[in-house]
Amino acid sequence: MPRYKATVSYDGSDFFGFQVQTKHGVECQRTVQGELNKAVNQMAKNPIEPIKVVGASRTDTGVHAFGQVVHFDLPFNIHEIGVRKGLNTLLPRDILIQHVEKVSDNFHARFNTHAKRYIYRVSTQDYTDPFKRKYTGHFQWQLDTKRIQLALPDLIGEHDFASFAASGNQTATTIRTITRADVEIKESDQELVFTFEGNAFLYNQIRIMVGVLLEIGNGRRDIHDIVRLIAVKDREQARFTAPASGLYLDEIYYD
Amino acid sequence: MPRYKATVSYDGSDFFGFQVQTKHGVECQRTVQGELNKAVNQMAKNPIEPIKVVGASRTDTGVHAFGQVVHFDLPFNIHEIGVRKGLNTLLPRDILIQHVEKVSDNFHARFNTHAKRYIYRVSTQDYTDPFKRKYTGHFQWQLDTKRIQLALPDLIGEHDFASFAASGNQTATTIRTITRADVEIKESDQELVFTFEGNAFLYNQIRIMVGVLLEIGNGRRDIHDIVRLIAVKDREQARFTAPASGLYLDEIYYD
Repeated sequence: MPRYKATVSYDGSDFFGFQVQTKHGVECQRTVQGELNKAVNQMAKNPIEPIKVVGASRTDTGVHAFGQVVHFDLPFNIHEIGVRKGLNTLLPRDILIQHVEKVSDNFHARFNTHAKRYIYRVSTQDYTDPFKRKYTGHFQWQLDTKRIQLALPDLIGEHDFASFAASGNQTATTIRTITRADVEIKESDQELVFTFEGNAFLYNQIRIMVGVLLEIGNGRRDIHDIVRLIAVKDREQARFTAPASGLYLDEIYYD
Repeated sequence: MPRYKATVSYDGSDFFGFQVQTKHGVECQRTVQGELNKAVNQMAKNPIEPIKVVGASRTDTGVHAFGQVVHFDLPFNIHEIGVRKGLNTLLPRDILIQHVEKVSDNFHARFNTHAKRYIYRVSTQDYTDPFKRKYTGHFQWQLDTKRIQLALPDLIGEHDFASFAASGNQTATTIRTITRADVEIKESDQELVFTFEGNAFLYNQIRIMVGVLLEIGNGRRDIHDIVRLIAVKDREQARFTAPASGLYLDEIYYD
């Protein structure tokens, strides 16, 4: 059975996250994985043993993706371009397959990841443009962006990010390496655009980091409070989780 | 009772249109007017006789607005800035009050309109960017934009637009005057942005005009088919109504 890797974009606002959710064995919510499963099985003429699409990263309700990655096995050979076009015809219009390539049987979308990049958009307008509501987080209080720029390097490197993991985090270790943490200030759009790159991230880590950075920018925390938060390893100390609407899974790197 | 005029933007994608819909006297759907009524009455401390917000233009389900206009009477004086801030605090984040001004008792948002401007965005990508799904119409077939540019002037002037009125149209006359009809081609975004200005428009008129223009661009109609359509006064001849998602009520002019 040939294996395919696909790069997928989606507007997360009408999905209950990426992962299929079942209740008494029945899918009860609209999810990205659920829609991908349906389309892939339809393209494969609904085999008796349903094909399962495996995703690299679970994104929460309302979280978006420019470059989610999935893999799946088809029961027969279809040209990569045919797979992309076929799926895009079958999928709802808030999911788009950007790219498809054939990969070896060893490829696994989740286990072979090398690094991930996320983007977080924050609207700093007094009242957010209604068209940005589902596509940005929102922070209407005073922000000194220089303070944020001074704080960001404190995230770089290998650290125990226990203070930045939401209670649902189930990984064995909370040690992660961040290789990039920066912010672009778009004055004209009244927007901050954060970019984070690292080997992997804990549950809600990006949203908690953005929450802390915004509180630093607002003056409610010391500029170097991240150093202290990393040291204390206490989730209670990093209070504010920025909303899902501003988060984009941007790119996943493989070995 | 002081009267206020307010300019309102909204992302129409989560609304069943502008106008309140009732079933056995109960509001059964989320509408822009319904949300405005709630916020205005809450700000006015829920008077016994509920305040009714009057809108300039009914927009359909999924249609957006940059500059819808409404009026309402408050039982006591509040400064214009206080009305705007108060309503923006009370309203859901997909509606934004842009501007509030006190007006005379003679002002009526619907009856005093002088002209209206609408925008229609069409995505011409093969498969639309998933983030544009709710914010553009979509036309993936071949388009010769020069043909559209040659056709647009045929709409200008006072004409009987009976061929361009959907069956729900209830106005006494189908004669309207269009003063502006143009298109901007945004190559990099793979988008066409139409702008239409006129004294008033029939039910679904913009969406039907865009449908005809796209068929002209595609070569399925003669370049000057609009002249014929105006002459025949037959809705059956203008088949395709462009989707609601691309339409924006942009601005309303008053005397």
